[in-house]
Amino acid sequence: MNNARKDNKGNSVGAVTPQTLHFDIPLVFRSGAVLECYDLVYETYGTLNADKSNAVLVCHALNASHHVAGWYADAPDNIGWWDNMIGPGKPLDTNRFFVIGINNLGGCFGSTGPASIDPRTGKPYGSTFPVITVEDWVAAQARLADHLGIRRFAAVMGGSLGAMQALQWSIAHPERVANAIVVAAAPKLSAQNIAFNEVARQAITTDPDFHGGDYYAHGVIPRRGLRLARMIGHITYLSDDAMMEKFGRTLQSGKVNYHFDVDFEVESYLRHQGDKFAEYFDANTYLLITRALDYFDPALHAGGDLSQALAAAQAKFLVVSFTSDWRFSPERSREIVKALLDNRRDVSYAEIDAPHGHDAFLLEDARYHALVRSWFDNVHAAL
Amino acid sequence: MNNARKDNKGNSVGAVTPQTLHFDIPLVFRSGAVLECYDLVYETYGTLNADKSNAVLVCHALNASHHVAGWYADAPDNIGWWDNMIGPGKPLDTNRFFVIGINNLGGCFGSTGPASIDPRTGKPYGSTFPVITVEDWVAAQARLADHLGIRRFAAVMGGSLGAMQALQWSIAHPERVANAIVVAAAPKLSAQNIAFNEVARQAITTDPDFHGGDYYAHGVIPRRGLRLARMIGHITYLSDDAMMEKFGRTLQSGKVNYHFDVDFEVESYLRHQGDKFAEYFDANTYLLITRALDYFDPALHAGGDLSQALAAAQAKFLVVSFTSDWRFSPERSREIVKALLDNRRDVSYAEIDAPHGHDAFLLEDARYHALVRSWFDNVHAAL
Repeated sequence: MNNARKDNKGNSVGAVTPQTLHFDIPLVFRSGAVLECYDLVYETYGTLNADKSNAVLVCHALNASHHVAGWYADAPDNIGWWDNMIGPGKPLDTNRFFVIGINNLGGCFGSTGPASIDPRTGKPYGSTFPVITVEDWVAAQARLADHLGIRRFAAVMGGSLGAMQALQWSIAHPERVANAIVVAAAPKLSAQNIAFNEVARQAITTDPDFHGGDYYAHGVIPRRGLRLARMIGHITYLSDDAMMEKFGRTLQSGKVNYHFDVDFEVESYLRHQGDKFAEYFDANTYLLITRALDYFDPALHAGGDLSQALAAAQAKFLVVSFTSDWRFSPERSREIVKALLDNRRDVSYAEIDAPHGHDAFLLEDARYHALVRSWFDNVHAAL
Repeated sequence: MNNARKDNKGNSVGAVTPQTLHFDIPLVFRSGAVLECYDLVYETYGTLNADKSNAVLVCHALNASHHVAGWYADAPDNIGWWDNMIGPGKPLDTNRFFVIGINNLGGCFGSTGPASIDPRTGKPYGSTFPVITVEDWVAAQARLADHLGIRRFAAVMGGSLGAMQALQWSIAHPERVANAIVVAAAPKLSAQNIAFNEVARQAITTDPDFHGGDYYAHGVIPRRGLRLARMIGHITYLSDDAMMEKFGRTLQSGKVNYHFDVDFEVESYLRHQGDKFAEYFDANTYLLITRALDYFDPALHAGGDLSQALAAAQAKFLVVSFTSDWRFSPERSREIVKALLDNRRDVSYAEIDAPHGHDAFLLEDARYHALVRSWFDNVHAAL
């Protein structure tokens, strides 16, 4: 075993292999659009127990995937995005739980998405891929759960957009979620949140290489737009303080050069992040996922009343926010907590004093991890 | 007189006419670059008194100009950007003070800038226009003051980037500034501030129509980039709460349309602001001004010590911040206040509880305007 894959909080789940499941039953989206057939790619860690009561579904946020923990035999540096949280002896302990990560529909890591071939045309879906919602993702995830024979999840968990999916699970399938772990969430985006998404989308759709979403046929990608979208995103994931701590006003060459090229380290960082992202992420997927974020608003279907929207939920809830998160601030998590309390639901809320902004949900923080660990210690995987 | 030009806080300065002054004495920029000759366009309101002691210089921020108050006879709807603050009977009362607005060098409203013809080549400066700093602007403004025979300003005042110029005046020409009014300021940009500027610049410079800054010759403008830059800017000028108050999650057509075109009103607003801006603002000027913001750091020349940097200042200071301003938060103003107090300078500080974010400095707020008014009541225009 590769020592680099170990950390002092426990071992990795090790080398993992994604699996693909093909569905031939049409999925009707909230928009009315229909996907006749589709693939879902997923990974599992740990062992499903005999009564299938120890499954935990981990939902991903904007740019992540089904690759939640471990690494790939042919790509040992490709470590799952929540590997610090999930593994043997880790807060979500794979010695006890069977953990599932799924790449959401519309994604670009193996599940059917805009870059996939539409069997009706033999060409990529591109602009014709239907606009998808959090509700649609949960519907697809439920079909995977059905296939795996999981009637009820010990927990559904996620951060950010992943947390919205956990919330939606608790509303749409109350009887199938024992615990919902909702980290760095909001019950719906604010106007400012939507505004940032809109600028990112405008950067992509006005890139001359976007070609109305059908850039695949042109052999190009809207790289400029994707790059800008990612740069904007990155600013909102970090707190002002964290950026100041990480980069300050440090000059790359030690002096001001009176040009528009990189002078400050933060500029270099953003450009690098943007360039990297444009290499691997599909622009149409970015549009779809930001739109799913914009549209998520469970209260909308309950006359704007979040308490009423959450009345159906039966899960035990752990809601976690981070003090320096200005994208989805603690106030937004408290809206969820209040709505659950209005319904006398079993909810624990923790506001972690962490400096890293929204990104804190992905980082190793002793108090945060101890909290999740002790939560799972109390999850008795039995139906 | 047009009644629309009146408001209940006093009358307008009325129809105004910009003036242009040509300078043939080369200006050496901080970068070492030299501008052999240049024009400055400016406006004045009120009457300069006999001993020339009642002059107030108003410095503009990112996208504003010399057109600070009043309107143009041929464009009565083109009202100065700080018209609510400046006029007869207004907080900065033109019955008492002689107010000057200047379009900064590198601008695009009449002063020499990248779109101006370089007399050496007969073509627009474009990419060859030197990178300019707040210090260079103040040097050019001082030459205009010399020309007008103003030895000492009763006040130099500005908001945001304009406030940085007021601060720089107090450092570079302490004997020429009786009062410095520093509104919604920061003593230097944070890494997050620079990051937002960098994304805006990248949007412009990666627009295929940018042509390395020499788009004038191609008969195009980097409209896409300018549009994005403005959209990003707008998000940072408003508070999350102000955006929520103004737009909420209101849907333009009353329903979600499952597309990437405008659904939410905030999207429509941002696109409109971006489109409008791209019509009138020069992209190279945007690059120059954001860079001037990035580079401003008076403490850098004093070993990083802002108190030492401000030791030379002699002005009386009024520093004003706004609670909901997250671009230049009150904390940043307090850094300036602390540095002034370290030097036992005469400084008043007000933190206005206003919901509008950074834009608050431009808006009519009773407490804010009363404060500025009473400050000027105590400015005795005498040498």
